[in-house]
Amino acid sequence: MKSGVSSFQTDGTIMIRHGVVILVALLWFSTAEASQCSINGLPLVKNISEFPLHNYGRSGLSHTTIAGSVLHGMKEIEVWLQTFAPGCRTPIHRHSCEEVFIVLKGQGTLYLAPSSHSKYPGNPQEFHIFPNSTFHIPVNDVHQIWNTGEHEDLQALVVISRPPVKVFMYDDWSMPHTAAKLKFPYYWDEKCYQTTTRKDEL
Amino acid sequence: MKSGVSSFQTDGTIMIRHGVVILVALLWFSTAEASQCSINGLPLVKNISEFPLHNYGRSGLSHTTIAGSVLHGMKEIEVWLQTFAPGCRTPIHRHSCEEVFIVLKGQGTLYLAPSSHSKYPGNPQEFHIFPNSTFHIPVNDVHQIWNTGEHEDLQALVVISRPPVKVFMYDDWSMPHTAAKLKFPYYWDEKCYQTTTRKDEL
Repeated sequence: MKSGVSSFQTDGTIMIRHGVVILVALLWFSTAEASQCSINGLPLVKNISEFPLHNYGRSGLSHTTIAGSVLHGMKEIEVWLQTFAPGCRTPIHRHSCEEVFIVLKGQGTLYLAPSSHSKYPGNPQEFHIFPNSTFHIPVNDVHQIWNTGEHEDLQALVVISRPPVKVFMYDDWSMPHTAAKLKFPYYWDEKCYQTTTRKDEL
Repeated sequence: MKSGVSSFQTDGTIMIRHGVVILVALLWFSTAEASQCSINGLPLVKNISEFPLHNYGRSGLSHTTIAGSVLHGMKEIEVWLQTFAPGCRTPIHRHSCEEVFIVLKGQGTLYLAPSSHSKYPGNPQEFHIFPNSTFHIPVNDVHQIWNTGEHEDLQALVVISRPPVKVFMYDDWSMPHTAAKLKFPYYWDEKCYQTTTRKDEL
């Protein structure tokens, strides 16, 4: 019986410990969630290496919002850090904002179909992108970024204007503009949208 | 005399060679000038390490416009790469745009006087900035970036909205807002302004 009591006491201790662990985990999770979604909870100077990474359901993508409309109250610009594993690519898409890429590492291809009076994007031009390269996507030009390498990640800083992004997505380059699927507003930090109190400075 | 003719011929050859060198230099210079100031002359994907560096009369500063309103036709965002030698600092200033910093290397201090109803900025708050850190300057908050290190350069990517920047500069933190000196438009690539044909897409 001693062993039984002992066993019970041990089990009880384990249960209490489990309870404490779960409680601490819940508190930590809720705090972490709040700190990811709260403007006021964040320090002014932030360490990018401590930022959360998400793939948003896209295999091979890692996205970090460095300065965002929902997370940080930005109204005119957003800055993202995006990493594409080999083979990973963006959808074929366009948006009504300016966009600047700064490639930090890796290689890949930019596919770009400049605006035209055609009913669909048509065959895109191809541009090699490489470490320390930069390019900007003209407003509403249909484009796609593709890590065409086999081994190395492609990592880039991305700057956009007019957040949140209004995106039109295409299945392929011959899809009519009128059939492109609209996603708006396109918040990377969408899960925070309902929990954040926005301060209007105007 | 032979030596004289020979000497003359030699001098003549030297003069012609000098002339060719000067002509080539002029052509190169005018081409380089054009490529720095022409939207059409630049490739879409550019190598940042080939971009010109300028200090704009500020000792210890090295500025590169990665995506600029005059050079690249940007209308809503600009991206700069700035390097501050030890001791180098920005003026105390404010501007009516959003601004995001991403520190690539080095250490320094951000001095920031949040907007208030006071007639002058007042004592600023101090924030340590470090590699891989990011921060944004709220619209119209008076601020200054200072490489307070002794040995290492401070290098940052800077993103701003609403180019060209409208800057108000302060001699010190107790200077009245009404006395701050306005510089507008503040084009880093000002020398290109008169030579560039701007295309209005609207």
